[in-house]
Amino acid sequence: MLRTPIDIWTPLARVRAASPLVHNITNYVVMNSTANALLAIGASPAMVHALEEVEEFVALSRALVINIGTLSPPWVEAMRRAVRSAKRAGIPWVLDPVGAGATSYRTATAAALIGLGPTVIRGNASEIAAVGGGSDAGGKGVDSTRTSASSLGVAKALARTTSAIVAMTGAVDYVTDGGRVVAIRNGDPLMARVTGLGCTASALVGAFLVGPDPFEATVAALTVLGVAGEVAAIRSAGPGSLQLELLDALHALDRATLTGRARVEWVEGAPP
Amino acid sequence: MLRTPIDIWTPLARVRAASPLVHNITNYVVMNSTANALLAIGASPAMVHALEEVEEFVALSRALVINIGTLSPPWVEAMRRAVRSAKRAGIPWVLDPVGAGATSYRTATAAALIGLGPTVIRGNASEIAAVGGGSDAGGKGVDSTRTSASSLGVAKALARTTSAIVAMTGAVDYVTDGGRVVAIRNGDPLMARVTGLGCTASALVGAFLVGPDPFEATVAALTVLGVAGEVAAIRSAGPGSLQLELLDALHALDRATLTGRARVEWVEGAPP
Amino acid sequence: MLRTPIDIWTPLARVRAASPLVHNITNYVVMNSTANALLAIGASPAMVHALEEVEEFVALSRALVINIGTLSPPWVEAMRRAVRSAKRAGIPWVLDPVGAGATSYRTATAAALIGLGPTVIRGNASEIAAVGGGSDAGGKGVDSTRTSASSLGVAKALARTTSAIVAMTGAVDYVTDGGRVVAIRNGDPLMARVTGLGCTASALVGAFLVGPDPFEATVAALTVLGVAGEVAAIRSAGPGSLQLELLDALHALDRATLTGRARVEWVEGAPP
Repeated sequence: MLRTPIDIWTPLARVRAASPLVHNITNYVVMNSTANALLAIGASPAMVHALEEVEEFVALSRALVINIGTLSPPWVEAMRRAVRSAKRAGIPWVLDPVGAGATSYRTATAAALIGLGPTVIRGNASEIAAVGGGSDAGGKGVDSTRTSASSLGVAKALARTTSAIVAMTGAVDYVTDGGRVVAIRNGDPLMARVTGLGCTASALVGAFLVGPDPFEATVAALTVLGVAGEVAAIRSAGPGSLQLELLDALHALDRATLTGRARVEWVEGAPP
Repeated sequence: MLRTPIDIWTPLARVRAASPLVHNITNYVVMNSTANALLAIGASPAMVHALEEVEEFVALSRALVINIGTLSPPWVEAMRRAVRSAKRAGIPWVLDPVGAGATSYRTATAAALIGLGPTVIRGNASEIAAVGGGSDAGGKGVDSTRTSASSLGVAKALARTTSAIVAMTGAVDYVTDGGRVVAIRNGDPLMARVTGLGCTASALVGAFLVGPDPFEATVAALTVLGVAGEVAAIRSAGPGSLQLELLDALHALDRATLTGRARVEWVEGAPP
Repeated sequence: MLRTPIDIWTPLARVRAASPLVHNITNYVVMNSTANALLAIGASPAMVHALEEVEEFVALSRALVINIGTLSPPWVEAMRRAVRSAKRAGIPWVLDPVGAGATSYRTATAAALIGLGPTVIRGNASEIAAVGGGSDAGGKGVDSTRTSASSLGVAKALARTTSAIVAMTGAVDYVTDGGRVVAIRNGDPLMARVTGLGCTASALVGAFLVGPDPFEATVAALTVLGVAGEVAAIRSAGPGSLQLELLDALHALDRATLTGRARVEWVEGAPP
């Protein structure tokens, strides 16, 4: 493994310059923290779910993020319509299959949404295993009971089957398009004690999709979040502090800090 | 323009003494931060939306705040019933037409609610232009792409047409009843990087309606928020810190700080 | 009254060791802060409400917490189904009758849920009076206008009638099973200026139900929250700081601090 030739700074600078409108249909638990993370990174968040307007609204956006954390039938229908509108308009979209594998409704909904062709799928190892058809999926509610590494084969297969970029996050984050695999070794264990940072990761991927390459965008978004989390953890006495320090760190993140701390490695398929 | 003869301190002291129950039908993104801002200022927040109880609950409240951020048909129906109940009981109400102009459903809903006679309408310049019928409304999701000053004529016309106080907030906040216009030059640019502070402004206006004069109440609420935001920004390293520092500053705001920092000016119609 | 012979530390250590999955059907206002408090104490939170999955999900959980803060008919139906599933699986559940007494719908819903046999009922004095049939219930929205002490008789009667542990929280918290009564004199007045700490109390009780004795679990959960609130208040300049300091304090709470600060007293029925 070599240190990254992947440029993380340019994608971040692009988000800040473009301030993309990111349309989120997400869960009630994280709406506030997701919106604040998008604002901190320089994007413009919106949460719109009514069937009466969701298609019209998507068309105004630069990216769509679908998160099934607190799903229910009317929201799933809104998700479907939003995705169809995004596809018609050529707008990229991210799927966060929160809790897939925990209930049959949740797994089926995630599978149906994957059938609509997400640009990026981001989940923990249990969720990726559940949607990737791994026989050994396991989760505890929305928290993964698997290690990321053991599911890497499933993630690659899922990427190949769906043509999506698959991001499987955990102690180490993996990003794959089915051929190439990048590992990101940033972040801090305290981040698991703040609710919704996986959802934040998915939302930031949405913002970074303002760039031309979804693989690069996904790697950059996860690295930015991981580095900001490390910086925040240094300044935090616990998970309460971490919440706000993370927003401050995302907002202030500069090139030297990002480049100095990024631990992005090619696992497979590095360019020559 | 002269420095204000408007008393900001007495309205704040009145809120703290009365601790008014403020009934909010607002969006999912900001419910928590809105409740905390109302508590920090000394009011008592409630969020109740079920059709089965919304009318009964309104009648217990001192003010009603309607915010269409994450609207859907059942919530719009709850808003209508709450407003009718408020009007029957003589309870003042604030409308926050979040994202009006972004979709036709949103614009139509805002227009229908305005038809029910709000006491105060608070929005950014794009939203005020959208509900005021300005031909050049423009927004990016829920963020305004207009400057407040360019929409002042629309705001005044809207106030005259509706008999509501109209507050158009931005880098400079304007409050008008169609004749008089006051400008408030408080706040800090970092506030735009925290989600929902416009919604907070609307909710605080609701609390200040415990006073007898809606024009004065609106000016006072926006000035208090702007001054608290300045105090908070001084102490903040970024938008995460700002969130909590703002609540601390609202809670602790004293007469000397408020009076010393308030930048409230008559633009039109100053009393002799 | 004697200082406690009740062990508070062991229940907390048990929660941290077990990291129980706590299923919450709660209100929109507090979902984020509730999830973060559960994570800070070492539990694993989930919020799931769809009729299509709520029964299946409950069966994966160690405890269920039902909070009627922003109720509506579909959510009440989800609550009913979740409770039935919990009872079938022998999973303990907590009821937080937010705002009972404020509207007839809210009071009736709370009464119907109590009829399903909660393990623990946690409310402020007005809410306990409303669900306990006290003739002098009174509240202001979701904030109590009664003192806890005056309702103690109602709380005891409610515990006897329902066979639930009843926790009535306020400046002093009381926990009773109808015979025994324990008073907890921890906490800080600033906690009343942060939204949803009553809801947090109910959720923490859910986590502590991982232990074998619901009476002990309830006393321990409320004491832990009160002590963490005191520690947080010392470090806080206002209600914004308190929010995050509370999470840090819950996360870091050690045996010496907990034991040193706990003010738990037998009011009635102390063991020999």
